[in-house]
Amino acid sequence: MQGKIYIIPTTIGDSCTDIIPQHTIETTRSIRYFIVENIRSARRYLSKIKMPVKIDELIFLELNEHTKPNEIEQLLVPAIEGYDIGIISEAGVPCVADPGATIIDYAHRKNVQIVPLVGPSSILLALMAAGMNGQNFAFAGYLPVKEQQRVQRIQFLEKRSKQENQTQIFIEAPYRNIQLFKSLIAACNQSTKLCIAANITLADEFIKTMTIAEWKKSEPDINKKPCIFILQG
Amino acid sequence: MQGKIYIIPTTIGDSCTDIIPQHTIETTRSIRYFIVENIRSARRYLSKIKMPVKIDELIFLELNEHTKPNEIEQLLVPAIEGYDIGIISEAGVPCVADPGATIIDYAHRKNVQIVPLVGPSSILLALMAAGMNGQNFAFAGYLPVKEQQRVQRIQFLEKRSKQENQTQIFIEAPYRNIQLFKSLIAACNQSTKLCIAANITLADEFIKTMTIAEWKKSEPDINKKPCIFILQG
Repeated sequence: MQGKIYIIPTTIGDSCTDIIPQHTIETTRSIRYFIVENIRSARRYLSKIKMPVKIDELIFLELNEHTKPNEIEQLLVPAIEGYDIGIISEAGVPCVADPGATIIDYAHRKNVQIVPLVGPSSILLALMAAGMNGQNFAFAGYLPVKEQQRVQRIQFLEKRSKQENQTQIFIEAPYRNIQLFKSLIAACNQSTKLCIAANITLADEFIKTMTIAEWKKSEPDINKKPCIFILQG
Repeated sequence: MQGKIYIIPTTIGDSCTDIIPQHTIETTRSIRYFIVENIRSARRYLSKIKMPVKIDELIFLELNEHTKPNEIEQLLVPAIEGYDIGIISEAGVPCVADPGATIIDYAHRKNVQIVPLVGPSSILLALMAAGMNGQNFAFAGYLPVKEQQRVQRIQFLEKRSKQENQTQIFIEAPYRNIQLFKSLIAACNQSTKLCIAANITLADEFIKTMTIAEWKKSEPDINKKPCIFILQG
């Protein structure tokens, strides 16, 4: 009998483990094989939730942007042999906005059962709190870094948002947040709504929706803070 | 000092409360004012998590598709007067795929602090488990009911999925699931991938990704089960 693949959300930043459901924690504690985006942060998280065995007795396999396609198959071997595997990303929910989906795709083809567990997703939490259309939305990942392409992409998303009444969600590397904010202010219509959600689930969580005209008057304190941007034209 | 608005995810169907984080449960227990999609199901959920006061002592205000725009303002009065308010939808995460976002939009304009709490979202759980692109995805809500428009919409989503490498998520009223499945089989390319996720978080949870060609050979048992459909062309 094959093992299952559990997709395991973890805490975001230094948030407390009380935002992880008991069912998710108990299931994680029963697993010995982990596919992780980063071994160090996975070990740290598993220590935090007090695994019933020593962390050194667990087996970690890495899956990140450096993993080659032909290495994916190998990662699934423990499940084929009957052991459950847990997937853990750098923070929050795996297989959304990270490379984890490749192993899930392969697992479906091998008829391995996939079980997603409940936990924090900063994208979803930001969307819940944005007050924008939650019945039609899109997540676009990272925007281009180069200014000209970035502005084009912002204007494309703003236009689509308006034409299709589709809320647009995107992210940026935290050290480039202010640059993205400035591009948004420069590129968007005055009446377009922008939600900025920073340090979600942390003590200094900040979530605010205003029009571009209003944001112009108050630059947010988001430098180097993990941040979700949500736009509705 | 104003109260805050907590957006409170609840269990899905008859799922156990151990999928709700302790922090979410403790915060909910401290609240006395609730804006709910349906009073009966909100009362049932609050009983399940053992509120420290009698359910009859709580104050419930309804917000659903029958709420008129001019009634929204009234719902926020307790927060303006200093009391925290909890928002609870029919099941799962409020303000995504339900009318809750209107009150959040209004609250932002009144500078009321919004706090989204962690909990189960069947849309997010299905996406995690689909094995499709999680770095670019869209949720389209319900598809049209009429066959011709529905097929057009499916083909539009399939085309966009292929052109933009954007995973497409949508839902249907559970009693129409089989009809939607048949439309998908008829309208999509043989190689298009379809994930069907039914009864998420329940004991008989079913999540499977296959190509349209493969689904043709095995109709899933999804009649009247809450279901998420995810497509990648």
